[in-house]
Amino acid sequence: MICNNLSVNEEGHLCLGGQDTVMLAAKYGTPLYLMDEDRIRERCRVYKKAMCEAFGESAMPLYASKAASFKQIYRIMKEEGMGVDVVSSGEIFTALSAGYPLEHAYFHSNNKTDEDIAYAMDNGIGYFVVDNREELDAIERIAAEWNLTQKVLLRLTPGIDPHTYAAVATGKVDSKFGSAIETGQAEEMTLYALSLPHVHLVGYHCHVGSQVFDSDVFLRATAIMLDFASKMKEKHGFELEELDLGGGYGVRYRDEDPEIDIYANILQVGMAVKAQCTALGLKMPAVRMEPGRSIVADAGMTLYNVGTVKRIPGYKNYVSVDGGMTDNPRFALYHSSYTVLLANRVNDDKSTFRCSVVGRCCESGDILQEDVPMPEDVRRGDLLAVLTTGAYNYSMSSNYNRIPKPPVVMLHEGESYVAVKREAFEDVCANDI
Amino acid sequence: MICNNLSVNEEGHLCLGGQDTVMLAAKYGTPLYLMDEDRIRERCRVYKKAMCEAFGESAMPLYASKAASFKQIYRIMKEEGMGVDVVSSGEIFTALSAGYPLEHAYFHSNNKTDEDIAYAMDNGIGYFVVDNREELDAIERIAAEWNLTQKVLLRLTPGIDPHTYAAVATGKVDSKFGSAIETGQAEEMTLYALSLPHVHLVGYHCHVGSQVFDSDVFLRATAIMLDFASKMKEKHGFELEELDLGGGYGVRYRDEDPEIDIYANILQVGMAVKAQCTALGLKMPAVRMEPGRSIVADAGMTLYNVGTVKRIPGYKNYVSVDGGMTDNPRFALYHSSYTVLLANRVNDDKSTFRCSVVGRCCESGDILQEDVPMPEDVRRGDLLAVLTTGAYNYSMSSNYNRIPKPPVVMLHEGESYVAVKREAFEDVCANDI
Repeated sequence: MICNNLSVNEEGHLCLGGQDTVMLAAKYGTPLYLMDEDRIRERCRVYKKAMCEAFGESAMPLYASKAASFKQIYRIMKEEGMGVDVVSSGEIFTALSAGYPLEHAYFHSNNKTDEDIAYAMDNGIGYFVVDNREELDAIERIAAEWNLTQKVLLRLTPGIDPHTYAAVATGKVDSKFGSAIETGQAEEMTLYALSLPHVHLVGYHCHVGSQVFDSDVFLRATAIMLDFASKMKEKHGFELEELDLGGGYGVRYRDEDPEIDIYANILQVGMAVKAQCTALGLKMPAVRMEPGRSIVADAGMTLYNVGTVKRIPGYKNYVSVDGGMTDNPRFALYHSSYTVLLANRVNDDKSTFRCSVVGRCCESGDILQEDVPMPEDVRRGDLLAVLTTGAYNYSMSSNYNRIPKPPVVMLHEGESYVAVKREAFEDVCANDI
Repeated sequence: MICNNLSVNEEGHLCLGGQDTVMLAAKYGTPLYLMDEDRIRERCRVYKKAMCEAFGESAMPLYASKAASFKQIYRIMKEEGMGVDVVSSGEIFTALSAGYPLEHAYFHSNNKTDEDIAYAMDNGIGYFVVDNREELDAIERIAAEWNLTQKVLLRLTPGIDPHTYAAVATGKVDSKFGSAIETGQAEEMTLYALSLPHVHLVGYHCHVGSQVFDSDVFLRATAIMLDFASKMKEKHGFELEELDLGGGYGVRYRDEDPEIDIYANILQVGMAVKAQCTALGLKMPAVRMEPGRSIVADAGMTLYNVGTVKRIPGYKNYVSVDGGMTDNPRFALYHSSYTVLLANRVNDDKSTFRCSVVGRCCESGDILQEDVPMPEDVRRGDLLAVLTTGAYNYSMSSNYNRIPKPPVVMLHEGESYVAVKREAFEDVCANDI
């Protein structure tokens, strides 16, 4: 199994966090998002402990909540002592509604409106991760009006191509995010931020990409970032207080994906940061990392009921489920890989039959996964599980074809509870006049 | 301009249906979906008139409501005497809530659940467009329980590749939709449907693809479908009552896209159908067509506020707006082309500057359009219009990054009104526990 929270019981049923998925589907219906809360908490603790050991007591992981944003996730992050990275007023609203203390929140986005900035500041946001000069102007103006000093980090692009899929590669110079070191724009932004009386520049942020399986890109990025920080200290007297290395550690979607020891990798980054700070004569900054996917992805699973099974002789086989691109658009968007199993009979022979697992939308692109091994007698009523769906599934879901969103059910210490209710048709039409 | 409902007024502002988009954005805020109701009604009338002339009084266009599904659109379709094609219980619920008479509704979907079938039948759905044998079984079982006879069409795949983008090509044999003529499965389905006492087989349906710019594929499809119908008559005595040719006529997203004369094209299909029916000794069936995109696409427009403008020397320029893949995922999904303009200064010189127009999501793939000509001094506060967004934009929208959905504002005879209200943050969190 690709993650140790998965198992198969005596009846051949798939279990998540020790709980029988067939029972859960019967109790809550399908399609159904499951989230293993215990796994989420375990991952938070790995990051916290590793970062503390690697970078010292001032270090803190921030949960990148765009991966999965709903009230209960912010309560868990509060209990685990995690910071959070939020990307919109909507995420701030959700965090606030859940009682999350906003002083530990870092506000990202390439395009914050004046309303976003005022809303965040009004609610005591801890930090802005500033993308561009217009944003600095807006922050300075609003902070001056309210007579406060706003802490900010600058988002920089270190110019690293992490060799991942283009759509998840964000550390390159050619990006909609941040200011490039290479072009001199990062230095301009530093000087400009330092000149603003109501802005307190505490440090720099970078994010080099997603689904990274070793620390190489983090090592390259920190080297560039610290080198730049040391130049800014030398030239402009800027003392780096915080260094935010972004997120990116990968998760296993399939058996063939590597497994990454995040603990060991963070220690490695820690050694490099310490050594370089010493060499450059920099004070060790408070380090932040922003895991999202690696906190929640493999805590998640989606359960579907199998409907139509279509065998087209000489062509292909299609297995349709009662969800699809509406609850998981990632294959449609990025051809993302997932592991797919029949949850009600995991041990059945899958060596002789392959199929496309497709959704119920009236859209040819509504595919969950291609070329999936499946028992040859797969049929209407089987329970199908897509694994590792905890990140970027619920958060990216839509109501295309007016299909209501599935509920999010959390699993915790052998119990289950609803964190997000299933949408009703009335909800989907709620704003129709 | 790509559509005759677009114009530019004396102030250089873009107008839709004669109304100033700058005024509309000021009144309703951004991002904002606009829909030109008059254009929608005009297109309905073109289809109705052309089909009546081409196929006789029994012909009827069905609006494929997945293109844009909300209550008001069903009211318009009712007033225009259009049938509708629905693809889920959610669309049926919406149509019913709007008072649409369901006897004119055709229920599509590759994977209807038993609940869907019961719900549709309970509410007096006119027709099922049956995808597969399991669906026939379920319809027969439920119709028998309720002691009624359900009218159905069979969805067939005529084996035509319309040479459009793979994800919108659905008439091929290798498809998740329907039963193939080529493999013998269409004949099996016909025989099976004819054998079921509570099922009344009225005819066949096919859909050969989207963004089709001439009638060639319709002519090829009808030839195959009518030939098949004549064989079924000969072999099994089945008399075709209805022939549903699906949708597919294209719309202009860019100046370089061809313009199609739908009226003339439908007349051409009509002549072919009449001639072939005569040749094959078939009674002229009641013809259905299912336009979706070509009814609503060019009635639509999305307005955004320009935020961050990023010029990366030696690389690329980025213009960010206050929406993105959340309200229009079609570039992210299919690299779909759109025409983009600055609505507040349409006439400004655009010959010297090109940019990527990107959204506000924390996602590198959040792009609305690449390589867009734009005035060189494009800046925060400009009003940006993406044209031809009436189809598959609102209907495919998501709350990724917890971004609320924009409202849908309809334009009618010089007035404007809200058809779908703007979502509030509270709406986005409504089901969070």
